[in-house]
Amino acid sequence: MKSSRPVPGRYLGYRAADLAQPYARFFRPDLAPLAPHVCAALDRGGVPDILMPGLDRAAESLFGDTCGLEDGFVLTADGGMRVSVRSAMPGVTPAMVDWWFGWHGDQAAKYKLWHPQAHVHVAWRDPPPAGSQGRARYVGQTSLVDEYIGSDLVRGSIRFVPTAKLGLLDRSLEDDREATVVCARIGLGDAPIELGYLVHHVRRVAGGSEMRSRFWMGGAHVAGRNLAGSLAAAVAKKVLKLTESDARALLVHCAQEMPHLASFLPELHAQVKDQA
Amino acid sequence: MKSSRPVPGRYLGYRAADLAQPYARFFRPDLAPLAPHVCAALDRGGVPDILMPGLDRAAESLFGDTCGLEDGFVLTADGGMRVSVRSAMPGVTPAMVDWWFGWHGDQAAKYKLWHPQAHVHVAWRDPPPAGSQGRARYVGQTSLVDEYIGSDLVRGSIRFVPTAKLGLLDRSLEDDREATVVCARIGLGDAPIELGYLVHHVRRVAGGSEMRSRFWMGGAHVAGRNLAGSLAAAVAKKVLKLTESDARALLVHCAQEMPHLASFLPELHAQVKDQA
Repeated sequence: MKSSRPVPGRYLGYRAADLAQPYARFFRPDLAPLAPHVCAALDRGGVPDILMPGLDRAAESLFGDTCGLEDGFVLTADGGMRVSVRSAMPGVTPAMVDWWFGWHGDQAAKYKLWHPQAHVHVAWRDPPPAGSQGRARYVGQTSLVDEYIGSDLVRGSIRFVPTAKLGLLDRSLEDDREATVVCARIGLGDAPIELGYLVHHVRRVAGGSEMRSRFWMGGAHVAGRNLAGSLAAAVAKKVLKLTESDARALLVHCAQEMPHLASFLPELHAQVKDQA
Repeated sequence: MKSSRPVPGRYLGYRAADLAQPYARFFRPDLAPLAPHVCAALDRGGVPDILMPGLDRAAESLFGDTCGLEDGFVLTADGGMRVSVRSAMPGVTPAMVDWWFGWHGDQAAKYKLWHPQAHVHVAWRDPPPAGSQGRARYVGQTSLVDEYIGSDLVRGSIRFVPTAKLGLLDRSLEDDREATVVCARIGLGDAPIELGYLVHHVRRVAGGSEMRSRFWMGGAHVAGRNLAGSLAAAVAKKVLKLTESDARALLVHCAQEMPHLASFLPELHAQVKDQA
Protein backbone atom coordinates (compact mmCIF):
# COMPACT_ATOMS: atom_id res chain seq x y z
CA MET A 1 0.00 0.00 0.00
CA LYS A 2 1.15 3.55 -0.65
CA SER A 3 1.23 6.09 2.13
CA SER A 4 -1.26 8.98 2.03
CA ARG A 5 -0.12 12.55 2.48
CA PRO A 6 -0.73 14.03 5.94
CA VAL A 7 -3.58 16.55 6.15
CA PRO A 8 -2.60 19.87 7.80
CA GLY A 9 -4.02 20.12 11.28
CA ARG A 10 -4.17 16.35 11.75
CA TYR A 11 -1.51 14.90 14.00
CA LEU A 12 -0.53 11.89 16.02
CA GLY A 13 -0.85 12.03 19.79
CA TYR A 14 -2.50 14.37 22.27
CA ARG A 15 -2.15 18.17 22.33
CA ALA A 16 -3.70 20.76 24.66
CA ALA A 17 -7.23 20.59 23.21
CA ASP A 18 -7.20 16.80 23.47
CA LEU A 19 -5.94 16.90 27.03
CA ALA A 20 -8.93 19.08 27.95
CA GLN A 21 -11.37 16.28 27.06
CA PRO A 22 -13.15 14.66 30.02
CA TYR A 23 -11.78 11.25 28.98
CA ALA A 24 -8.19 12.46 28.47
CA ARG A 25 -6.85 10.45 31.39
CA PHE A 26 -7.48 7.31 29.35
CA PHE A 27 -4.91 8.40 26.75
CA ARG A 28 -1.93 6.19 27.49
CA PRO A 29 0.91 6.79 25.04
CA ASP A 30 2.70 3.49 25.61
CA LEU A 31 1.69 0.14 24.18
CA ALA A 32 2.17 -3.21 25.88
CA PRO A 33 4.56 -5.67 24.16
CA LEU A 34 2.95 -7.90 21.55
CA ALA A 35 1.50 -11.09 23.01
CA PRO A 36 3.60 -14.26 22.63
CA HIS A 37 1.06 -15.85 20.27
CA VAL A 38 1.35 -12.78 18.03
CA CYS A 39 5.15 -12.97 18.00
CA ALA A 40 4.86 -16.66 17.12
CA ALA A 41 2.64 -15.82 14.14
CA LEU A 42 5.06 -13.13 12.98
CA ASP A 43 8.03 -15.47 13.33
CA ARG A 44 6.23 -18.18 11.41
CA GLY A 45 5.45 -15.87 8.48
CA GLY A 46 3.00 -16.65 5.69
CA VAL A 47 1.08 -19.92 5.78
CA PRO A 48 -0.79 -21.98 3.14
CA ASP A 49 -4.03 -20.26 2.11
CA ILE A 50 -6.23 -23.21 3.00
CA LEU A 51 -5.22 -22.89 6.64
CA MET A 52 -6.91 -19.47 6.72
CA PRO A 53 -10.19 -19.75 4.80
CA GLY A 54 -11.48 -17.08 2.44
CA LEU A 55 -14.41 -14.77 3.10
CA ASP A 56 -16.84 -17.28 1.59
CA ARG A 57 -15.95 -19.63 4.42
CA ALA A 58 -15.90 -17.00 7.16
CA ALA A 59 -18.89 -18.39 9.05
CA GLU A 60 -17.55 -21.92 8.97
CA SER A 61 -14.07 -20.85 10.03
CA LEU A 62 -15.31 -18.62 12.87
CA PHE A 63 -18.13 -20.74 14.20
CA GLY A 64 -17.65 -24.20 12.69
CA ASP A 65 -15.34 -27.10 13.31
CA THR A 66 -12.89 -26.19 10.56
CA CYS A 67 -9.36 -26.55 11.78
CA GLY A 68 -7.68 -23.32 10.79
CA LEU A 69 -5.08 -20.98 12.18
CA GLU A 70 -6.27 -18.32 14.60
CA ASP A 71 -3.22 -16.10 14.18
CA GLY A 72 -1.26 -15.54 11.01
CA PHE A 73 -1.29 -14.24 7.50
CA VAL A 74 -1.53 -15.45 3.92
CA LEU A 75 -0.65 -13.72 0.69
CA THR A 76 -3.17 -14.97 -1.85
CA ALA A 77 -2.49 -15.77 -5.50
CA ASP A 78 -4.70 -12.86 -6.66
CA GLY A 79 -2.48 -10.25 -4.99
CA GLY A 80 -4.54 -10.04 -1.82
CA MET A 81 -3.98 -11.07 1.77
CA ARG A 82 -5.75 -12.61 4.73
CA VAL A 83 -4.80 -11.65 8.26
CA SER A 84 -6.08 -13.16 11.51
CA VAL A 85 -5.26 -12.41 15.10
CA ARG A 86 -6.76 -13.01 18.52
CA SER A 87 -6.75 -10.46 21.32
CA ALA A 88 -7.36 -11.16 24.98
CA MET A 89 -9.72 -8.56 26.48
CA PRO A 90 -9.79 -9.12 30.23
CA GLY A 91 -12.62 -7.29 32.00
CA VAL A 92 -14.34 -6.45 28.71
CA THR A 93 -17.86 -7.55 27.73
CA PRO A 94 -19.06 -7.88 24.13
CA ALA A 95 -21.57 -5.08 24.87
CA MET A 96 -18.70 -2.75 25.81
CA VAL A 97 -17.12 -3.39 22.41
CA ASP A 98 -20.39 -2.49 20.68
CA TRP A 99 -20.54 0.65 22.83
CA TRP A 100 -16.97 1.54 21.84
CA PHE A 101 -17.66 1.23 18.12
CA GLY A 102 -20.64 3.57 18.47
CA TRP A 103 -18.87 6.03 20.77
CA HIS A 104 -15.39 6.70 19.39
CA GLY A 105 -16.22 7.77 15.85
CA ASP A 106 -17.03 11.47 16.30
CA GLN A 107 -13.83 12.85 17.82
CA ALA A 108 -10.20 12.29 16.89
CA ALA A 109 -9.25 12.51 20.56
CA LYS A 110 -11.49 9.52 21.31
CA TYR A 111 -10.10 7.53 18.38
CA LYS A 112 -6.54 8.23 19.53
CA LEU A 113 -7.16 6.48 22.84
CA TRP A 114 -7.38 3.23 20.88
CA HIS A 115 -3.94 3.33 19.30
CA PRO A 116 -1.88 6.24 20.65
CA GLN A 117 0.97 5.61 18.21
CA ALA A 118 -1.04 5.20 14.98
CA HIS A 119 -4.48 6.84 15.11
CA VAL A 120 -4.59 10.34 13.66
CA HIS A 121 -8.17 11.31 12.85
CA VAL A 122 -11.71 10.01 12.69
CA ALA A 123 -15.10 11.31 11.52
CA TRP A 124 -18.46 9.78 10.68
CA ARG A 125 -19.41 10.19 7.03
CA ASP A 126 -22.94 10.86 8.34
CA PRO A 127 -23.80 11.15 12.02
CA PRO A 128 -25.36 8.05 13.63
CA PRO A 129 -29.11 8.19 14.36
CA ALA A 130 -29.84 10.44 17.33
CA GLY A 131 -30.31 8.47 20.52
CA SER A 132 -29.16 5.19 18.98
CA GLN A 133 -27.33 2.75 21.21
CA GLY A 134 -25.39 -0.51 21.01
CA ARG A 135 -24.99 -2.02 17.54
CA ALA A 136 -27.66 0.29 16.11
CA ARG A 137 -25.34 3.25 16.68
CA TYR A 138 -22.60 2.05 14.29
CA VAL A 139 -23.97 -0.69 11.99
CA GLY A 140 -24.80 1.02 8.71
CA GLN A 141 -22.49 3.97 9.46
CA THR A 142 -19.19 4.76 7.78
CA SER A 143 -16.16 5.81 9.78
CA LEU A 144 -13.52 7.84 7.91
CA VAL A 145 -10.14 7.29 9.51
CA ASP A 146 -6.57 8.50 9.15
CA GLU A 147 -4.25 5.98 10.72
CA TYR A 148 -0.77 4.59 10.31
CA ILE A 149 -0.58 0.93 9.41
CA GLY A 150 3.11 0.21 9.92
CA SER A 151 4.94 3.17 8.38
CA ASP A 152 2.13 4.01 5.95
CA LEU A 153 -0.46 6.67 6.66
CA VAL A 154 -3.73 5.24 5.40
CA ARG A 155 -6.91 7.20 4.76
CA GLY A 156 -9.58 4.59 5.15
CA SER A 157 -13.31 4.21 4.96
CA ILE A 158 -14.79 1.64 7.33
CA ARG A 159 -18.42 0.95 6.53
CA PHE A 160 -19.98 -1.16 9.26
CA VAL A 161 -22.38 -3.71 7.82
CA PRO A 162 -24.85 -6.21 9.29
CA THR A 163 -23.32 -9.62 9.97
CA ALA A 164 -25.60 -11.20 7.37
CA LYS A 165 -23.78 -9.14 4.73
CA LEU A 166 -20.72 -11.31 5.30
CA GLY A 167 -22.74 -14.51 5.32
CA LEU A 168 -22.34 -14.83 9.05
CA LEU A 169 -25.08 -16.48 11.00
CA ASP A 170 -26.50 -14.44 13.80
CA ARG A 171 -26.41 -17.41 16.14
CA SER A 172 -23.60 -15.87 18.16
CA LEU A 173 -25.65 -12.68 18.49
CA GLU A 174 -28.72 -14.23 20.02
CA ASP A 175 -27.63 -12.88 23.34
CA ASP A 176 -25.29 -9.97 22.85
CA ARG A 177 -24.16 -10.13 26.43
CA GLU A 178 -22.36 -13.28 25.37
CA ALA A 179 -20.97 -12.27 21.97
CA THR A 180 -20.94 -9.67 19.25
CA VAL A 181 -19.58 -9.52 15.72
CA VAL A 182 -18.32 -6.28 14.21
CA CYS A 183 -18.35 -6.52 10.41
CA ALA A 184 -17.16 -3.87 7.99
CA ARG A 185 -16.33 -3.14 4.39
CA ILE A 186 -12.91 -1.49 4.28
CA GLY A 187 -12.05 0.95 1.51
CA LEU A 188 -10.18 4.09 0.65
CA GLY A 189 -11.38 7.28 2.31
CA ASP A 190 -10.49 9.54 -0.58
CA ALA A 191 -11.45 7.40 -3.57
CA PRO A 192 -14.61 5.37 -4.24
CA ILE A 193 -12.86 2.02 -3.95
CA GLU A 194 -13.45 -0.79 -1.51
CA LEU A 195 -10.47 -2.98 -0.66
CA GLY A 196 -11.67 -5.67 1.69
CA TYR A 197 -13.62 -6.84 4.70
CA LEU A 198 -13.06 -7.18 8.41
CA VAL A 199 -14.69 -9.18 11.17
CA HIS A 200 -14.08 -8.83 14.89
CA HIS A 201 -15.84 -11.66 16.69
CA VAL A 202 -15.99 -10.99 20.43
CA ARG A 203 -17.15 -13.68 22.84
CA ARG A 204 -17.18 -14.04 26.60
CA VAL A 205 -14.45 -16.12 28.14
CA ALA A 206 -13.48 -16.54 31.77
CA GLY A 207 -12.51 -13.13 33.14
CA GLY A 208 -13.61 -11.08 30.13
CA SER A 209 -13.75 -11.55 26.39
CA GLU A 210 -11.69 -12.82 23.51
CA MET A 211 -11.69 -10.99 20.19
CA ARG A 212 -10.96 -12.91 16.99
CA SER A 213 -10.16 -10.50 14.18
CA ARG A 214 -10.07 -11.49 10.50
CA PHE A 215 -9.23 -9.36 7.48
CA TRP A 216 -9.67 -10.28 3.83
CA MET A 217 -7.97 -7.61 1.72
CA GLY A 218 -7.15 -6.93 -1.92
CA GLY A 219 -7.48 -9.32 -4.83
CA ALA A 220 -11.06 -10.43 -5.46
CA HIS A 221 -12.31 -8.09 -2.73
CA VAL A 222 -11.44 -4.89 -4.61
CA ALA A 223 -14.57 -3.17 -5.94
CA GLY A 224 -15.88 0.25 -6.90
CA ARG A 225 -18.30 2.15 -4.70
CA ASN A 226 -19.89 3.81 -7.77
CA LEU A 227 -19.39 3.96 -11.55
CA ALA A 228 -16.16 5.97 -11.41
CA GLY A 229 -15.04 3.68 -8.62
CA SER A 230 -15.74 0.60 -10.70
CA LEU A 231 -13.44 1.81 -13.45
CA ALA A 232 -10.76 2.66 -10.90
CA ALA A 233 -11.28 -0.68 -9.17
CA ALA A 234 -10.75 -2.56 -12.43
CA VAL A 235 -7.34 -0.90 -12.66
CA ALA A 236 -6.62 -1.39 -8.97
CA LYS A 237 -7.39 -5.12 -9.24
CA LYS A 238 -4.68 -5.40 -11.87
CA VAL A 239 -1.97 -3.37 -10.18
CA LEU A 240 -2.58 -3.79 -6.46
CA LYS A 241 -0.33 -6.46 -5.02
CA LEU A 242 -0.31 -6.53 -1.25
CA THR A 243 3.00 -7.59 0.26
CA GLU A 244 4.26 -9.45 3.27
CA SER A 245 5.05 -6.03 4.79
CA ASP A 246 1.38 -5.05 4.39
CA ALA A 247 0.25 -8.27 6.04
CA ARG A 248 2.70 -8.02 8.93
CA ALA A 249 1.83 -4.34 9.50
CA LEU A 250 -1.92 -5.02 9.63
CA LEU A 251 -1.47 -7.99 11.96
CA VAL A 252 0.73 -5.94 14.31
CA HIS A 253 -1.61 -2.92 14.20
CA CYS A 254 -4.60 -5.01 15.22
CA ALA A 255 -2.58 -6.91 17.83
CA GLN A 256 -1.62 -3.56 19.36
CA GLU A 257 -4.89 -1.64 19.26
CA MET A 258 -7.23 -4.33 20.56
CA PRO A 259 -5.34 -5.24 23.74
CA HIS A 260 -4.71 -1.52 24.25
CA LEU A 261 -8.44 -0.85 23.96
CA ALA A 262 -9.10 -3.60 26.48
CA SER A 263 -6.67 -1.98 28.92
CA PHE A 264 -8.93 1.04 29.47
CA LEU A 265 -12.34 0.16 28.02
CA PRO A 266 -14.02 -1.20 31.17
CA GLU A 267 -13.14 1.91 33.15
CA LEU A 268 -13.88 4.32 30.31
CA HIS A 269 -17.20 2.65 29.65
CA ALA A 270 -18.17 2.90 33.32
CA GLN A 271 -17.26 6.57 33.38
CA VAL A 272 -18.77 7.91 30.18
CA LYS A 273 -21.34 5.43 28.87
CA ASP A 274 -24.21 7.65 29.98
CA GLN A 275 -22.74 10.81 28.45
CA ALA A 276 -22.81 9.60 24.83
CA MET B 1 9.27 -17.83 -5.65
CA LYS B 2 5.93 -18.07 -7.34
CA SER B 3 3.26 -20.42 -6.08
CA SER B 4 2.38 -23.49 -8.16
CA ARG B 5 -1.22 -24.31 -8.95
CA PRO B 6 -2.78 -27.03 -6.81
CA VAL B 7 -3.22 -30.42 -8.51
CA PRO B 8 -6.74 -31.85 -8.21
CA GLY B 9 -6.86 -34.73 -5.75
CA ARG B 10 -3.83 -33.51 -3.84
CA TYR B 11 -4.62 -31.91 -0.52
CA LEU B 12 -3.20 -30.84 2.78
CA GLY B 13 -3.90 -32.95 5.85
CA TYR B 14 -5.33 -36.39 6.49
CA ARG B 15 -8.60 -37.73 5.05
CA ALA B 16 -10.29 -41.13 5.48
CA ALA B 17 -7.87 -43.09 3.25
CA ASP B 18 -4.90 -41.60 5.10
CA LEU B 19 -6.42 -42.38 8.47
CA ALA B 20 -6.67 -46.04 7.44
CA GLN B 21 -2.87 -46.32 7.16
CA PRO B 22 -1.19 -48.42 9.85
CA TYR B 23 1.00 -45.44 10.81
CA ALA B 24 -1.89 -42.93 10.93
CA ARG B 25 -1.63 -42.46 14.68
CA PHE B 26 1.65 -40.63 14.08
CA PHE B 27 -0.13 -37.86 12.16
CA ARG B 28 -0.24 -34.99 14.62
CA PRO B 29 -1.81 -31.86 13.12
CA ASP B 30 -0.30 -29.34 15.53
CA LEU B 31 3.25 -28.05 15.42
CA ALA B 32 5.30 -27.10 18.44
CA PRO B 33 6.30 -23.43 18.74
CA LEU B 34 9.52 -22.50 16.95
CA ALA B 35 12.60 -22.98 19.12
CA PRO B 36 14.04 -19.84 20.74
CA HIS B 37 17.25 -20.04 18.68
CA VAL B 38 15.07 -20.04 15.53
CA CYS B 39 13.10 -16.99 16.67
CA ALA B 40 16.39 -15.26 17.45
CA ALA B 41 17.61 -15.92 13.90
CA LEU B 42 14.34 -14.63 12.43
CA ASP B 43 14.42 -11.53 14.62
CA ARG B 44 18.01 -10.85 13.60
CA GLY B 45 17.22 -11.06 9.88
CA GLY B 46 19.82 -11.29 7.13
CA VAL B 47 23.49 -11.47 8.06
CA PRO B 48 26.76 -10.82 6.14
CA ASP B 49 27.44 -13.55 3.61
CA ILE B 50 30.85 -14.42 5.01
CA LEU B 51 29.21 -15.59 8.23
CA MET B 52 27.41 -18.33 6.31
CA PRO B 53 29.90 -19.82 3.84
CA GLY B 54 29.01 -20.80 0.29
CA LEU B 55 28.67 -24.35 -0.97
CA ASP B 56 32.36 -24.46 -1.91
CA ARG B 57 33.16 -24.16 1.80
CA ALA B 58 30.45 -26.49 3.04
CA ALA B 59 32.86 -29.14 4.36
CA GLU B 60 34.95 -26.59 6.19
CA SER B 61 31.93 -24.83 7.67
CA LEU B 62 30.26 -28.06 8.76
CA PHE B 63 33.25 -30.00 10.00
CA GLY B 64 36.07 -27.49 10.35
CA ASP B 65 36.94 -24.78 12.80
CA THR B 66 35.35 -21.99 10.78
CA CYS B 67 33.37 -19.71 13.01
CA GLY B 68 30.08 -19.26 11.23
CA LEU B 69 26.45 -18.87 12.14
CA GLU B 70 24.52 -22.06 12.73
CA ASP B 71 21.12 -20.41 12.32
CA GLY B 72 20.19 -17.63 9.96
CA PHE B 73 19.93 -16.53 6.38
CA VAL B 74 21.80 -14.52 3.79
CA LEU B 75 20.60 -13.01 0.53
CA THR B 76 23.55 -13.26 -1.83
CA ALA B 77 24.58 -10.68 -4.41
CA ASP B 78 23.75 -13.05 -7.29
CA GLY B 79 20.06 -13.22 -6.35
CA GLY B 80 20.36 -16.39 -4.32
CA MET B 81 20.11 -17.21 -0.65
CA ARG B 82 21.73 -19.35 2.02
CA VAL B 83 19.68 -20.67 4.91
CA SER B 84 20.93 -22.57 7.95
CA VAL B 85 19.14 -23.95 10.95
CA ARG B 86 19.74 -26.48 13.69
CA SER B 87 17.12 -28.85 15.02
CA ALA B 88 17.28 -30.76 18.28
CA MET B 89 16.21 -34.37 17.76
CA PRO B 90 15.94 -35.98 21.19
CA GLY B 91 15.69 -39.77 21.10
CA VAL B 92 16.66 -39.89 17.42
CA THR B 93 19.72 -41.68 16.03
CA PRO B 94 21.40 -40.78 12.72
CA ALA B 95 20.42 -44.24 11.43
CA MET B 96 16.76 -43.44 12.08
CA VAL B 97 17.08 -40.35 9.90
CA ASP B 98 18.54 -42.44 7.08
CA TRP B 99 15.67 -44.89 7.53
CA TRP B 100 13.15 -42.01 7.35
CA PHE B 101 14.57 -40.67 4.09
CA GLY B 102 14.30 -44.12 2.54
CA TRP B 103 10.86 -44.87 3.97
CA HIS B 104 8.66 -41.80 3.52
CA GLY B 105 9.00 -41.20 -0.20
CA ASP B 106 6.42 -43.59 -1.63
CA GLN B 107 3.19 -42.43 0.02
CA ALA B 108 1.77 -38.94 0.51
CA ALA B 109 0.30 -40.03 3.84
CA LYS B 110 3.81 -40.86 5.10
CA TYR B 111 5.22 -37.57 3.85
CA LYS B 112 2.39 -35.64 5.58
CA LEU B 113 3.46 -36.98 8.98
CA TRP B 114 6.57 -34.84 8.63
CA HIS B 115 4.87 -31.44 8.25
CA PRO B 116 1.09 -31.70 8.76
CA GLN B 117 0.51 -28.08 7.75
CA ALA B 118 2.63 -27.96 4.60
CA HIS B 119 3.25 -31.36 3.00
CA VAL B 120 0.81 -32.26 0.24
CA HIS B 121 2.24 -35.05 -1.93
CA VAL B 122 5.31 -37.17 -2.56
CA ALA B 123 6.40 -39.78 -5.09
CA TRP B 124 9.72 -41.33 -6.14
CA ARG B 125 10.68 -40.53 -9.72
CA ASP B 126 11.86 -44.16 -9.92
CA PRO B 127 11.37 -46.70 -7.13
CA PRO B 128 14.38 -47.35 -4.89
CA PRO B 129 16.24 -50.66 -5.43
CA ALA B 130 14.25 -53.59 -4.08
CA GLY B 131 15.42 -54.64 -0.65
CA SER B 132 17.71 -51.65 -0.22
CA GLN B 133 18.18 -50.28 3.27
CA GLY B 134 19.70 -47.30 5.04
CA ARG B 135 21.43 -44.71 2.85
CA ALA B 136 21.38 -47.06 -0.14
CA ARG B 137 17.59 -46.78 -0.23
CA TYR B 138 17.51 -43.04 -0.99
CA VAL B 139 20.93 -41.85 -2.18
CA GLY B 140 20.70 -41.65 -5.96
CA GLN B 141 16.90 -41.47 -5.90
CA THR B 142 14.74 -38.43 -6.72
CA SER B 143 11.77 -37.48 -4.57
CA LEU B 144 9.06 -35.40 -6.24
CA VAL B 145 7.26 -33.31 -3.65
CA ASP B 146 4.36 -30.87 -3.44
CA GLU B 147 4.72 -28.75 -0.34
CA TYR B 148 3.94 -25.30 0.93
CA ILE B 149 6.96 -23.17 1.76
CA GLY B 150 5.33 -20.28 3.61
CA SER B 151 2.23 -19.39 1.59
CA ASP B 152 3.66 -20.72 -1.69
CA LEU B 153 2.84 -24.18 -2.99
CA VAL B 154 6.11 -25.51 -4.42
CA ARG B 155 6.48 -28.50 -6.73
CA GLY B 156 9.99 -29.66 -6.09
CA SER B 157 12.46 -32.30 -7.16
CA ILE B 158 14.87 -33.51 -4.48
CA ARG B 159 17.62 -35.65 -5.94
CA PHE B 160 19.62 -37.26 -3.15
CA VAL B 161 23.32 -37.37 -3.99
CA PRO B 162 26.41 -38.92 -2.37
CA THR B 163 28.13 -36.64 0.10
CA ALA B 164 31.24 -36.52 -2.09
CA LYS B 165 29.13 -34.71 -4.69
CA LEU B 166 29.03 -31.72 -2.39
CA GLY B 167 32.72 -31.93 -1.59
CA LEU B 168 31.96 -33.29 1.85
CA LEU B 169 34.43 -35.65 3.38
CA ASP B 170 33.05 -38.97 4.49
CA ARG B 171 34.91 -38.81 7.76
CA SER B 172 31.74 -38.18 9.67
CA LEU B 173 30.21 -41.22 8.04
CA GLU B 174 32.86 -43.72 9.08
CA ASP B 175 30.49 -44.96 11.69
CA ASP B 176 26.94 -44.17 10.71
CA ARG B 177 25.68 -44.93 14.17
CA GLU B 178 27.37 -41.66 15.10
CA ALA B 179 26.43 -39.40 12.18
CA THR B 180 24.91 -39.19 8.75
CA VAL B 181 24.75 -36.52 6.06
CA VAL B 182 21.75 -36.19 3.77
CA CYS B 183 22.75 -34.30 0.62
CA ALA B 184 20.48 -33.35 -2.25
CA ARG B 185 20.19 -31.31 -5.40
CA ILE B 186 16.96 -29.30 -5.21
CA GLY B 187 15.07 -28.32 -8.34
CA LEU B 188 11.68 -27.80 -9.90
CA GLY B 189 9.45 -30.84 -10.18
CA ASP B 190 7.73 -29.72 -13.36
CA ALA B 191 10.62 -28.15 -15.28
CA PRO B 192 14.15 -29.47 -15.92
CA ILE B 193 15.79 -26.82 -13.73
CA GLU B 194 17.88 -27.27 -10.62
CA LEU B 195 17.80 -24.44 -8.09
CA GLY B 196 20.14 -25.35 -5.27
CA TYR B 197 21.54 -27.81 -2.76
CA LEU B 198 20.73 -28.99 0.73
CA VAL B 199 22.66 -30.73 3.45
CA HIS B 200 21.28 -32.17 6.67
CA HIS B 201 24.14 -33.18 8.91
CA VAL B 202 22.93 -35.34 11.79
CA ARG B 203 25.23 -36.25 14.64
CA ARG B 204 24.78 -37.92 18.01
CA VAL B 205 24.59 -35.65 21.01
CA ALA B 206 23.62 -36.44 24.59
CA GLY B 207 20.06 -37.76 24.59
CA GLY B 208 19.66 -38.08 20.82
CA SER B 209 20.90 -36.21 17.77
CA GLU B 210 21.35 -32.71 16.45
CA MET B 211 20.56 -31.91 12.83
CA ARG B 212 22.34 -29.05 11.12
CA SER B 213 20.53 -28.10 7.91
CA ARG B 214 22.05 -25.87 5.22
CA PHE B 215 20.51 -24.69 1.98
CA TRP B 216 22.24 -22.91 -0.89
CA MET B 217 19.61 -21.71 -3.33
CA GLY B 218 19.37 -19.65 -6.50
CA GLY B 219 22.07 -17.51 -8.07
CA ALA B 220 25.08 -19.54 -9.19
CA HIS B 221 23.34 -22.77 -8.21
CA VAL B 222 20.68 -22.54 -10.92
CA ALA B 223 21.34 -25.03 -13.72
CA GLY B 224 19.54 -27.02 -16.38
CA ARG B 225 18.91 -30.73 -16.04
CA ASN B 226 19.15 -31.20 -19.83
CA LEU B 227 19.56 -29.07 -22.97
CA ALA B 228 16.09 -27.48 -22.78
CA GLY B 229 16.67 -26.98 -19.10
CA SER B 230 19.98 -25.24 -19.73
CA LEU B 231 18.31 -22.67 -21.93
CA ALA B 232 15.58 -22.13 -19.34
CA ALA B 233 18.17 -22.00 -16.58
CA ALA B 234 20.08 -19.26 -18.39
CA VAL B 235 16.90 -17.19 -18.31
CA ALA B 236 16.08 -18.18 -14.72
CA LYS B 237 19.56 -17.12 -13.59
CA LYS B 238 18.85 -13.65 -14.94
CA VAL B 239 15.36 -13.18 -13.57
CA LEU B 240 15.21 -15.26 -10.37
CA LYS B 241 15.79 -13.08 -7.36
CA LEU B 242 15.05 -14.81 -4.10
CA THR B 243 13.70 -12.52 -1.39
CA GLU B 244 13.84 -12.20 2.35
CA SER B 245 10.35 -13.76 2.41
CA ASP B 246 11.71 -16.82 0.59
CA ALA B 247 14.59 -17.12 3.05
CA ARG B 248 12.40 -16.73 6.12
CA ALA B 249 9.84 -19.19 4.78
CA LEU B 250 12.47 -21.86 4.08
CA LEU B 251 14.09 -21.37 7.48
CA VAL B 252 10.73 -21.63 9.26
CA HIS B 253 9.66 -24.66 7.22
CA CYS B 254 12.81 -26.58 8.10
CA ALA B 255 12.63 -25.44 11.73
CA GLN B 256 9.09 -26.81 11.91
CA GLU B 257 9.42 -30.10 10.05
CA MET B 258 12.62 -31.40 11.61
CA PRO B 259 11.63 -31.07 15.28
CA HIS B 260 8.19 -32.38 14.31
CA LEU B 261 9.84 -35.42 12.68
CA ALA B 262 11.88 -35.96 15.82
CA SER B 263 8.71 -35.91 17.92
CA PHE B 264 7.46 -39.19 16.44
CA LEU B 265 10.39 -40.79 14.58
CA PRO B 266 11.77 -43.00 17.37
CA GLU B 267 8.37 -44.57 18.00
CA LEU B 268 7.44 -44.82 14.31
CA HIS B 269 10.80 -46.39 13.50
CA ALA B 270 10.38 -48.95 16.25
CA GLN B 271 6.90 -49.83 15.00
CA VAL B 272 7.36 -50.07 11.25
CA LYS B 273 11.07 -50.37 10.45
CA ASP B 274 10.69 -54.02 9.58
CA GLN B 275 7.61 -53.52 7.40
CA ALA B 276 9.32 -51.30 4.79
